[in-house]
Amino acid sequence: MKIGVLGSGMVGVAIATKLVKLGHEVKMGSRSATNEDGAKWVAATGKGASQGTFKDAAAFGELLFNCTSGSGSLPALESAGKDALGGKILVDIANPLDFSGGMPPRLSVVNDDSLGEQIQRAYPNVKVVKTLNTVNANLMVEPGLLKDATTMFLCGDDAASKGKVQEILKGWFGWQDTVDLGPIAMARGTEMYLALWVRLYGALQNPMFNVKLVR
Amino acid sequence: MKIGVLGSGMVGVAIATKLVKLGHEVKMGSRSATNEDGAKWVAATGKGASQGTFKDAAAFGELLFNCTSGSGSLPALESAGKDALGGKILVDIANPLDFSGGMPPRLSVVNDDSLGEQIQRAYPNVKVVKTLNTVNANLMVEPGLLKDATTMFLCGDDAASKGKVQEILKGWFGWQDTVDLGPIAMARGTEMYLALWVRLYGALQNPMFNVKLVR
Repeated sequence: MKIGVLGSGMVGVAIATKLVKLGHEVKMGSRSATNEDGAKWVAATGKGASQGTFKDAAAFGELLFNCTSGSGSLPALESAGKDALGGKILVDIANPLDFSGGMPPRLSVVNDDSLGEQIQRAYPNVKVVKTLNTVNANLMVEPGLLKDATTMFLCGDDAASKGKVQEILKGWFGWQDTVDLGPIAMARGTEMYLALWVRLYGALQNPMFNVKLVR
Repeated sequence: MKIGVLGSGMVGVAIATKLVKLGHEVKMGSRSATNEDGAKWVAATGKGASQGTFKDAAAFGELLFNCTSGSGSLPALESAGKDALGGKILVDIANPLDFSGGMPPRLSVVNDDSLGEQIQRAYPNVKVVKTLNTVNANLMVEPGLLKDATTMFLCGDDAASKGKVQEILKGWFGWQDTVDLGPIAMARGTEMYLALWVRLYGALQNPMFNVKLVR
């Protein structure tokens, strides 16, 4: 499948690398078509890997991943443009973290809105599915790195798209336990969970952890 | 041990009942010394159970539990008064949930403050230890009701008091896996986690769940 990955940071590299290993053609999108991190990734990854602007990546992919930072997500999508985004599935992994006051970061959107909803409102035709935002980049694509199976949450307004993303989570990345929280507004819950995640990271001094939902 | 339990709702009843079963003398505190829920609890529980005002319960206990609602916590503690609270350990279970806009509730304090910190600032001599606020009342005192062991977080500024509360969590209530997040400011994380908890409750239609931290 042709897949567009928006963002060339740790999350974008982890997702894009895994997708290429699975045999997909992946275009990594950045502000510039000659982004240095993107170029390094293309060189290191080889066949199946390419890079371009956010618009190039969005136009290329039949399926899209938003791997930009929370503050960069709406600008990146605006740069991609409505035409390139079309009515595609956008797996939204970004968290609205504000590091301007130091560590741990604040959440810049809480309670009555979420980044996932902001994206969905701005691009009503896009099928936004929020998931993978509750774990470290390495765990996103290899949850088996932890000694026990853990849980991945997802939410979104379009049931069929959530079904496809659940298949991707399970079949491509190895998430055996996924929990559908409901519509995209449930992103308020998984994004605000980051307030606990960043403090657990501080207490454990290691980002390789996740929660298993026992019910 | 003589223990004061502030609050006569579901959480207060669950905690106080368990403590009496463990052989402790428990005074349940409410706004009125003749509170109806408190009277029912005393009648149902018998030996070891008594009730009184918030001030009566705080003065009675060598150890205190804050089981009031989030919006009722500071008024209850003000009613108890600095003298009765003294320099005792206060296990703070309350969450700053605001139900005025319907379900799911909002968090009335986020990001830069928490209810745990508000209580600690208002009563600097009290040893506030925030814990148990991330699970349903029944699970607080019987985590074995779930099929797998799960995790309980705690935080507070006084290390010795946290150590005692960890012993209580483990020895009295059965929490084998406790995670000390650090100072009371870490309550921002466990309180904001409630934004996910309330949505999980909605999705699962059952409050009997918790997370196991896999690391």
